[in-house]
Amino acid sequence: MRPSGRAPDQMRPLTIEPNFTRHAEGSVLIGFGDTKVLVTASIEERVPPFLRGKGEGWVTAEYGMLPRSTHTRSNREAAKGKQSGRTQEIQRLIGRSLRAVTDMKALGERQITLDCDVIQADGGTRTASISGAWVALRIAVDKLLAEGKLTVDPIVHQVAAVSCGIYQGTPVLDLDYPEDSGADADANFVLLDNGSIAEAQATAEGATYDEEGLLRLLRLARIGCTEIFAAQRKAIGR
Amino acid sequence: MRPSGRAPDQMRPLTIEPNFTRHAEGSVLIGFGDTKVLVTASIEERVPPFLRGKGEGWVTAEYGMLPRSTHTRSNREAAKGKQSGRTQEIQRLIGRSLRAVTDMKALGERQITLDCDVIQADGGTRTASISGAWVALRIAVDKLLAEGKLTVDPIVHQVAAVSCGIYQGTPVLDLDYPEDSGADADANFVLLDNGSIAEAQATAEGATYDEEGLLRLLRLARIGCTEIFAAQRKAIGR
Amino acid sequence: MRPSGRAPDQMRPLTIEPNFTRHAEGSVLIGFGDTKVLVTASIEERVPPFLRGKGEGWVTAEYGMLPRSTHTRSNREAAKGKQSGRTQEIQRLIGRSLRAVTDMKALGERQITLDCDVIQADGGTRTASISGAWVALRIAVDKLLAEGKLTVDPIVHQVAAVSCGIYQGTPVLDLDYPEDSGADADANFVLLDNGSIAEAQATAEGATYDEEGLLRLLRLARIGCTEIFAAQRKAIGR
Amino acid sequence: MRPSGRAPDQMRPLTIEPNFTRHAEGSVLIGFGDTKVLVTASIEERVPPFLRGKGEGWVTAEYGMLPRSTHTRSNREAAKGKQSGRTQEIQRLIGRSLRAVTDMKALGERQITLDCDVIQADGGTRTASISGAWVALRIAVDKLLAEGKLTVDPIVHQVAAVSCGIYQGTPVLDLDYPEDSGADADANFVLLDNGSIAEAQATAEGATYDEEGLLRLLRLARIGCTEIFAAQRKAIGR
Amino acid sequence: MRPSGRAPDQMRPLTIEPNFTRHAEGSVLIGFGDTKVLVTASIEERVPPFLRGKGEGWVTAEYGMLPRSTHTRSNREAAKGKQSGRTQEIQRLIGRSLRAVTDMKALGERQITLDCDVIQADGGTRTASISGAWVALRIAVDKLLAEGKLTVDPIVHQVAAVSCGIYQGTPVLDLDYPEDSGADADANFVLLDNGSIAEAQATAEGATYDEEGLLRLLRLARIGCTEIFAAQRKAIGR
Amino acid sequence: MRPSGRAPDQMRPLTIEPNFTRHAEGSVLIGFGDTKVLVTASIEERVPPFLRGKGEGWVTAEYGMLPRSTHTRSNREAAKGKQSGRTQEIQRLIGRSLRAVTDMKALGERQITLDCDVIQADGGTRTASISGAWVALRIAVDKLLAEGKLTVDPIVHQVAAVSCGIYQGTPVLDLDYPEDSGADADANFVLLDNGSIAEAQATAEGATYDEEGLLRLLRLARIGCTEIFAAQRKAIGR
Repeated sequence: MRPSGRAPDQMRPLTIEPNFTRHAEGSVLIGFGDTKVLVTASIEERVPPFLRGKGEGWVTAEYGMLPRSTHTRSNREAAKGKQSGRTQEIQRLIGRSLRAVTDMKALGERQITLDCDVIQADGGTRTASISGAWVALRIAVDKLLAEGKLTVDPIVHQVAAVSCGIYQGTPVLDLDYPEDSGADADANFVLLDNGSIAEAQATAEGATYDEEGLLRLLRLARIGCTEIFAAQRKAIGR
Repeated sequence: MRPSGRAPDQMRPLTIEPNFTRHAEGSVLIGFGDTKVLVTASIEERVPPFLRGKGEGWVTAEYGMLPRSTHTRSNREAAKGKQSGRTQEIQRLIGRSLRAVTDMKALGERQITLDCDVIQADGGTRTASISGAWVALRIAVDKLLAEGKLTVDPIVHQVAAVSCGIYQGTPVLDLDYPEDSGADADANFVLLDNGSIAEAQATAEGATYDEEGLLRLLRLARIGCTEIFAAQRKAIGR
Repeated sequence: MRPSGRAPDQMRPLTIEPNFTRHAEGSVLIGFGDTKVLVTASIEERVPPFLRGKGEGWVTAEYGMLPRSTHTRSNREAAKGKQSGRTQEIQRLIGRSLRAVTDMKALGERQITLDCDVIQADGGTRTASISGAWVALRIAVDKLLAEGKLTVDPIVHQVAAVSCGIYQGTPVLDLDYPEDSGADADANFVLLDNGSIAEAQATAEGATYDEEGLLRLLRLARIGCTEIFAAQRKAIGR
Repeated sequence: MRPSGRAPDQMRPLTIEPNFTRHAEGSVLIGFGDTKVLVTASIEERVPPFLRGKGEGWVTAEYGMLPRSTHTRSNREAAKGKQSGRTQEIQRLIGRSLRAVTDMKALGERQITLDCDVIQADGGTRTASISGAWVALRIAVDKLLAEGKLTVDPIVHQVAAVSCGIYQGTPVLDLDYPEDSGADADANFVLLDNGSIAEAQATAEGATYDEEGLLRLLRLARIGCTEIFAAQRKAIGR
Repeated sequence: MRPSGRAPDQMRPLTIEPNFTRHAEGSVLIGFGDTKVLVTASIEERVPPFLRGKGEGWVTAEYGMLPRSTHTRSNREAAKGKQSGRTQEIQRLIGRSLRAVTDMKALGERQITLDCDVIQADGGTRTASISGAWVALRIAVDKLLAEGKLTVDPIVHQVAAVSCGIYQGTPVLDLDYPEDSGADADANFVLLDNGSIAEAQATAEGATYDEEGLLRLLRLARIGCTEIFAAQRKAIGR
Repeated sequence: MRPSGRAPDQMRPLTIEPNFTRHAEGSVLIGFGDTKVLVTASIEERVPPFLRGKGEGWVTAEYGMLPRSTHTRSNREAAKGKQSGRTQEIQRLIGRSLRAVTDMKALGERQITLDCDVIQADGGTRTASISGAWVALRIAVDKLLAEGKLTVDPIVHQVAAVSCGIYQGTPVLDLDYPEDSGADADANFVLLDNGSIAEAQATAEGATYDEEGLLRLLRLARIGCTEIFAAQRKAIGR
């Protein structure tokens, strides 16, 4: 029995509120249950030094948690003067995931930065960030297309992510915080709408797992991502 | 004529959404027009080293802007590894303002931290932060009173803040970004509900000003804060 | 009764020793009683990136306290690896104050940095810094004029600053440390020699204050700045 | 055809030189072909604050690359003043992997730190680090057992890691640098000697992959880790 | 011929102004010609962690240059967020030099920090710092003796330092900036009043040197330190 | 009697293993007894900003100790976020020493960085670093000569360094850790193969010393460096 009473393959209520803020070229407030992440996409007409003059673009991400997005207050990373290893690991994952669906030649020499800021945390903040970031990116790129700055759409797929884990011996989908902190294994999958895998990360916390366990988690992730893909399309009116 | 078409003594629409997030002891999303700040109040049963064993509490504040809360993206302070002078100046002001209405003896040896994070910026983020922080603090302290952890209310006044400035020769209330960036003088007043002043800061940007100018700005601030005090009370159901 | 025995509107002995060091284009040791600040003005023939190619100059300031300028030793900011919020707040104020009297077009594409280093602290270090910085700036600009690098004087006014406060119920001028640490309200005014106000900052420490209080403090500040303006002129031989 | 001429399921020559340095409680120089990592295990009779008084131990890891371990010199992280996101991600992975085979109650209130320093890099530094760290940990714990400080062996399994990837359409084992930089997918598996999985991370670089691809990579990893487990045992004389 | 016209074994005019500031337990403004260093000695009734409970004291030093103490402005170390290698090297040297004449048992569990801040630089700032630090330390310790906090004098010798160098083929004493920047070899000697050497550092800049050169520099240093020892005694009235 | 049983003028066994790693243009593992330092020389076809366009090259050094190169584990400087004063002092010394034997005009506009990483420490890490750095530099420059990128050899001398000290009243050569931590005086000499001195640093630790002591230490250093020069030549096959 899951603490939330959900079925093992049941996602939390999924909410996607596009255009949550007004300055960013793309923005969205995404909710996986009580986990709420604000994602903005910012377009800049320049690329990092290693790409200058190559005719290619770049998509990158930054991630942060508001100090009291969590059950007890965490210190503000800006005040501590550095980002934690966890923060850096997550923002690297978000960036890779979005780059996996972007054609950098088609994007041209510009950079899109996805800022993922956790307003409220209840497990799954990195997967909500990736799933929301795709919507923010889509909105921002649609503006470039509408303005004629791009003629070919550089976004070649949808991408979404969800966590799964083995909780009290049962593989379950979309872990919330009570499950996350007690799970034996904890996995994050980043999937594309054509069924292929962009990233799989599965970590044994208490007990280790085997092939069969890995495949069962992946199967749950497919169920979750199918639901997220639909919600993404609905959010942008397609 | 103000860019927004407002009368000189007219505030922007004021919105206060209490309990915006669920983990913090107090939280609020406050809007001064398009300026939106999320404020959370976190109670910790400990005080900074300089107060230990003195039987007094402490109220402090931290402030941050999400990277794309602004018209163009700013670098994330956590990634830069330090908070700007502006950030530190603002969080010091917020902390002082809230301490001005708190009886530290009555609060007892605990600390309340007010995290003010700007979701969207359109001028007046520090004054919105202070005005919202009072509501978050009030909610958090009400919990302590309800739980019997406090028997005497340590909050002795309401506090609110608003900006004023001289825009194209006319003193105006509650500057938005277009006014703020073009004003000749820019002032922030922190007022108490008994009419007294907790803090006045008035800076000449283009042209300097005189006593009469200072007093006219202060008079506008009183008009604005009266409106904010009412909205604060309404938000907490009093 | 003030701890020093001064009358409420009496400044501490004011000393201005121009050309205190030899390398800087302008330098001064200014004393407000036991508060001693060394200010140097350094001219560089370049401007910050945001001004390049605009034909305008820039005036900026940095502030520091020697570790044992204070009653008990403070940690060295260079050793701690960062400047405190207070330091940054003060250096921003000094910079704004001097820019308020400088015509940046007339200065041309060069930057003048005012380094204010507190040798000994007894209250009022920021106001002594501003008042001394004007003298150092004046000396440095006079060199540019003498060398023919400037033909039009970019300094359009004198600027000076002084602190005032409400000490045991009485408004007093130019607070020393014992008054500063016990004052109910603490204000700093930056005034121009034409009577206008460049900056007013008034903070309630123990008790809040009202319009009348604010105006009485401002009137004291006018008395103090008149004396400082005369001392500034005398120091540069005018 | 692999650049090195190896068969798809062929590891590079594996070398493990135990007791490479003399001060550490355990040390090893491990080589996966031209990748050489020095790992030391340091025992300290204290635990991090979050574990104090709980009767449990801790195993953690740090990772670094010598500036010229790579083809072109990288900046020294100590000189830059911070560890990169990649470094932090890797050292977190190493720590988790070793904790997966350690019984913290049996270890008692002491901490073992595994320092993994890359002397020469040619792909697979993190997997060589994990595989070598187990040997260093084993040697250090054997000393604790020999000295009678421990009576129950806290190491409950062997752990090893290896990278796999899809290179020019073919799944291959133990990528060297030329393969790593050109692979379509890149995976790292951390396996236990009982066949279970401690960690799986698979990232699509150029092309994404599917279940079948993931399983083929995992099968290769099992081949590689079997070889590493044997080499580990041989290195410690078992 | 020296740029200053001095004889090879001639020091610059030596000035020592004791009690230059009022808060520190000991303070001095020392001048070696145009090099001016303010040194303060601060007594704290605590020792660094590695000495706690051992019944011994500690003497340490910090060093800094005001940004415009030099011919062209240097960046402020507090603003850069770190002390340069040169700064750290110098403050370590100052600390060692003063510890060489202090009996830590006799000092008891307290720390004396010598802050050496360069007001104006013209070569020889580290040697002026050491020579001045002894006076500041002496004054501070005399207070401890006068107050009865110490009964045995922990200062067992005088210590002084001076630079020497080979300038255009000639060994010269007490290099000023023009000599320092053009010297073939540059040495700093820290000597005790009993003739023994606490520290010798000699660096070839342009040309290397031999034993004879080293000894000639040391002989010059003895001449200089004899003069400094006399000035130190005179400054403290002995 | 020395703890190691060596004669006062006896070096520890000296080992130089050239080409220890493969990516660097020059590399060497040097051993002074149990002190082992890996030195790599990296050539970059660019110079620091202050040398651009001057037709001159630059030689610089960085130094680090692996966390467990020492008897007890030291914190990793990359994790602490800064290099210690000791580290900076040592890397400055290494750089100066190598520059003393390099003709920067002959080197041309390129930089050679010598990374000295201590694998195992037993006293004398800085002198081993210098002595090994010369070999790494020699190998790297020989490549430039062989490739025809240089036609004139920019290395004009051999340079080597060794520590000496006064241990229990006796001057001894090449201190190991037990001697180093108990010595009354501790000196490092950097000598050239033509007999001249590049750098002499002698510090009194417990007792001070005199001219005669200094000269006796220098004479020991000559004996040690003669041995090192021979080993350097043998290592590069000359």
